Amino acid sequence: MKQILYIIGVSGSGKTTIGRLLSQKTGLPFFDADDFHPTQNIDKMKAGIPLTDNDRKDWLAAIHQTALAQAATNGAIIACSALKENYRRQLSQGLQDVKWFFLNGSYEVIRNRMEQRPDHYMPPALLQSQFDTLEIPANALELNIAGSPDEICTAILNSIYQPSSFGIIGLGVMGKSLARNFASKGIRLSLFNRFVKGKEEHIAQQFITAHPELATAKGFEDLPAFVQSLTQPSCILIMVNAGTATDEVMNGLLPLLSTGSVIIDGGNAYFKDTERRIQLAKQNNINWIGAGISGGEEGALNGPSIMPGGETEAYSRVQPFLEMIAAKDENGRPCCNYTGSGGSGHFVKMIHNGIEYAGMQLIAEVYYILRKGLQKDPGEIAAIFAEWNSGTLSSYLLSITIDILQAKENDQWLLDTIDAKAESKGTGSLATQTAAELGSPAGMMTSALFARFLSAQTGLRQQAAAIHPAYSSPLSVSVEDIRQSYELARIINHHQGFEVIKAAAQEYNWEINLSALAATWTNGCIIRSALMNRLMEILQETDTMLFNEEIISLVNANQPGLRNTVAAALTGGLAVPALSEALNYILALTEADPPMNLIQAQRDYFGAHTYRLKSDPEGSPIHTDWKKFRSHN
Amino acid sequence: MKQILYIIGVSGSGKTTIGRLLSQKTGLPFFDADDFHPTQNIDKMKAGIPLTDNDRKDWLAAIHQTALAQAATNGAIIACSALKENYRRQLSQGLQDVKWFFLNGSYEVIRNRMEQRPDHYMPPALLQSQFDTLEIPANALELNIAGSPDEICTAILNSIYQPSSFGIIGLGVMGKSLARNFASKGIRLSLFNRFVKGKEEHIAQQFITAHPELATAKGFEDLPAFVQSLTQPSCILIMVNAGTATDEVMNGLLPLLSTGSVIIDGGNAYFKDTERRIQLAKQNNINWIGAGISGGEEGALNGPSIMPGGETEAYSRVQPFLEMIAAKDENGRPCCNYTGSGGSGHFVKMIHNGIEYAGMQLIAEVYYILRKGLQKDPGEIAAIFAEWNSGTLSSYLLSITIDILQAKENDQWLLDTIDAKAESKGTGSLATQTAAELGSPAGMMTSALFARFLSAQTGLRQQAAAIHPAYSSPLSVSVEDIRQSYELARIINHHQGFEVIKAAAQEYNWEINLSALAATWTNGCIIRSALMNRLMEILQETDTMLFNEEIISLVNANQPGLRNTVAAALTGGLAVPALSEALNYILALTEADPPMNLIQAQRDYFGAHTYRLKSDPEGSPIHTDWKKFRSHN
Repeated sequence: MKQILYIIGVSGSGKTTIGRLLSQKTGLPFFDADDFHPTQNIDKMKAGIPLTDNDRKDWLAAIHQTALAQAATNGAIIACSALKENYRRQLSQGLQDVKWFFLNGSYEVIRNRMEQRPDHYMPPALLQSQFDTLEIPANALELNIAGSPDEICTAILNSIYQPSSFGIIGLGVMGKSLARNFASKGIRLSLFNRFVKGKEEHIAQQFITAHPELATAKGFEDLPAFVQSLTQPSCILIMVNAGTATDEVMNGLLPLLSTGSVIIDGGNAYFKDTERRIQLAKQNNINWIGAGISGGEEGALNGPSIMPGGETEAYSRVQPFLEMIAAKDENGRPCCNYTGSGGSGHFVKMIHNGIEYAGMQLIAEVYYILRKGLQKDPGEIAAIFAEWNSGTLSSYLLSITIDILQAKENDQWLLDTIDAKAESKGTGSLATQTAAELGSPAGMMTSALFARFLSAQTGLRQQAAAIHPAYSSPLSVSVEDIRQSYELARIINHHQGFEVIKAAAQEYNWEINLSALAATWTNGCIIRSALMNRLMEILQETDTMLFNEEIISLVNANQPGLRNTVAAALTGGLAVPALSEALNYILALTEADPPMNLIQAQRDYFGAHTYRLKSDPEGSPIHTDWKKFRSHN
Repeated sequence: MKQILYIIGVSGSGKTTIGRLLSQKTGLPFFDADDFHPTQNIDKMKAGIPLTDNDRKDWLAAIHQTALAQAATNGAIIACSALKENYRRQLSQGLQDVKWFFLNGSYEVIRNRMEQRPDHYMPPALLQSQFDTLEIPANALELNIAGSPDEICTAILNSIYQPSSFGIIGLGVMGKSLARNFASKGIRLSLFNRFVKGKEEHIAQQFITAHPELATAKGFEDLPAFVQSLTQPSCILIMVNAGTATDEVMNGLLPLLSTGSVIIDGGNAYFKDTERRIQLAKQNNINWIGAGISGGEEGALNGPSIMPGGETEAYSRVQPFLEMIAAKDENGRPCCNYTGSGGSGHFVKMIHNGIEYAGMQLIAEVYYILRKGLQKDPGEIAAIFAEWNSGTLSSYLLSITIDILQAKENDQWLLDTIDAKAESKGTGSLATQTAAELGSPAGMMTSALFARFLSAQTGLRQQAAAIHPAYSSPLSVSVEDIRQSYELARIINHHQGFEVIKAAAQEYNWEINLSALAATWTNGCIIRSALMNRLMEILQETDTMLFNEEIISLVNANQPGLRNTVAAALTGGLAVPALSEALNYILALTEADPPMNLIQAQRDYFGAHTYRLKSDPEGSPIHTDWKKFRSHN
């Protein structure tokens, strides 16, 4: 049963004003007892005739019914004079959680107020009869109406609520799931969601009502009231859209928080924005933690993977909260590890998403070769993937793909009904942009990103498909070749991802523990896999996973399969950009004598950019007048 | 013969101060006649004995010799009392261009000044004898010493110079070549280069001295003096490093310029910086033009390709200057075409560089296959390229590659001596970042960029080369296959580049004429080619070059060769990332049924991102509970 808050007092004491404001701040529905009077009561009051107990009988019963109904659903704030003790007894019958708030003021103050309300049906003359009737309540919180409405509401909220130990702002899919996760661990929460007329109304209250585990949570639509409901200094998790929305919440919060409060931004902020916000918060004596959170709705609810970055002291304050809700790795440790200072948490989350993009693209390409190149149907492919997924190739992404491939309705593969226009959000693109900025050749995530972009250019593709020839099949490639290509390409994808992180750590002076990061990614997140479990160990010994002995032997063993698969697919007319990139990368990386000397010569030719000698790569730059060798034309 | 400027006047009139300051402002060398006195003259002056004409004879001769020598080299500023008309006659003998500047002041003012100079060897008592000796010059500019040194220098500069019609700031390789180009067209220039002690001293003057065509040019190291030497409102071309250096020059210039002046930034600025600078300049009533300039040192000297963007009115003021120095296309029109508003000029230059990166990488890969795959030596490859270069594949980049391949010294191919670590500057990376930001799949330039990045990771590569197996040869691929792959990959490279430009034009509302842009790129720039000449025409009919009939038939005719080449290279162990990207792109583009539906299903599975139906791609988004199809594990 939900709480019923009665705001009581004589006419003119401000019950409606306070009730409505309280409703705005909390999202609890508001009812005004005045609206329950039958017509004859209103007529009597207009005529200046005081109501008798008999007049009030049906009216009180109607209010009481509403209170009972609300207690069973959302709770309520009810403004009602409730002047006599026996009225109040009647109004609280059958309710388990009733609170009384008595707005008290002198006859003169209230008289003065009432004379300024021309539209109210009770003439000021009746006021004296109200004071005569009033029996001062014993179990109510008395509030002096001399205070401002905001002050009065704060006093009410402070009296009914125990301070919450953790606040969450933003109740989208992720915010809601994280809130339920916290609540299931016994954390007393305050939840805030903005009020947008007609679009987002009373989100927090409705959400609390819908989930029993949120019984002790309080909902708010007023930011100051939300902050006041928290222990001080406060810990607040923001789950709103990256960019402007985050800045708006930040600007609203900073003036309200007490020194030493910690804000955790759990959205997908761009890491340079996080660096800026850390500085801005610091100027206000507030700590800002940028935490990447992965796992989607389900992960958020049951245990996400969390990548928190920022100042260590600030992190130590929120660490218990984040570790409590995080997924657990195979050793039972939370998949929540401090990533380093500054924007490192959001940076590694961005790269996580880049690895995820390439991981999804690789599965799509492997599926494509099996389907179009070897003419297997989705059910057969699911069986192949299931076999792979039972061993070292097992991963969350492969596992959900098996479910997808098996989906069939009315003898139709569900997959075949889906429009092949891949969408993308911001982090995949930012991962590629950042790799390019850092000079880190992350071709896998880039090829996946560009494959999505190209698929989305429907106009161009439709024009092109009509005029160019397509593919031939079956391909001369084995399922084992394809398995090898998948295994090796996944290794390259992870290697490239960790290389970008190393480049960033060097550029921004972040102390990132790669093994701990891999551990963070072993559960709760989209890229969890058997390989990630191995990397957690391998990266304890080396910071370049590719040169671990076990990985080296996998690279060598799988390279023939990757070469065969890519060559067969491309010859047959199947685009496999991510597999191609994996092969090109490993070939270029292991080429002792690549043709980039020609590029250096070209640069020197047209731009006098100079070059260095192979025999003395650290020596002085050399410029050649190449034209003197010209003998053609 | 160069100009000799004599600063004359009695002792204490400030000749040395003015001469030195003038030297700082112009970079002209400064000489102080006091330094030419023999010891006995100095002793006499210290003893308070006035010098006779005889005393002065050798001294004047020595100064005169210096003036003659300087007139033959750099010119000079000489501070010398030169009190009598016959001294001055002697000092100007044999000089064609002498100017006299007479610093005039009263006995009292100068006496007062001299008493404050304790280290000077001439006692104030001698001053009267100087005034007695002085014959007021008839042909000198008289300057009142009551003015500040800056005011006096400005008056001197204004008197000797005709205003220049065009100014250039920054005399690096490109700035110098452009200056010589302008000068060769008869433009009167003012040239400024900053003064950096020990590093950049008197750059402008030395440069002017070294090149006869710069006879009418004036050199400066003082920004206000530079601006004052220009017609008002002024036209100024900035050729300094992109970023901070450009902002510094801008901040220095804005307060000095008159309303309506036009600044052209000819460097490789990031286009968003250009947009910002256009706004900032506008607030100061100055016009900012962002002009991409391509062609390297040689192009800048003989005719570069110029891509100017900004406000049309501002452009119309500088258009004659830029068209005058630009290369000419095959129709004799200048390779300088207005690109549109805002940062569009710098944007298309950035994409030009992206296309250039991929163009260079393609040649490197083709060379690599011929060299390692077909075991041809550089001379043989040069012959193959020369044949290609005589037809539709001809391009500037291929042409310089032929020269490079032929370069041989002491029986050693010069190319083989070069360290294969490719360097890169900012624009290639920014092109990739921007394509990713715009959602445009520009995989060719990205693969070229990442190939350079990977080649530069020497530590990683050395470790990798030692442990992984390499390639096998010869490859089963023909030279004709390779030629086809090169032709088709070049088409894809250009198509992708123009697609990024179209995406940007849409995003930023730039009216870019693609055909005019192609025309701009037909000469003077690095990516000029026979293909670009064709594109100038093709892009008049369509804004998607790939769907022109002629291009379509090339794509179809060359696709078998590209498939064979890429498959053979990758199977044999040769990395060909740009060729692979070209093939993957054309295959993905023409695939009516790509596997991206699986990616949409995965996104819907873990993130409830929804998908659309193939049968109704514009219909409502659909979410499926995929787990219900799970039957494994």
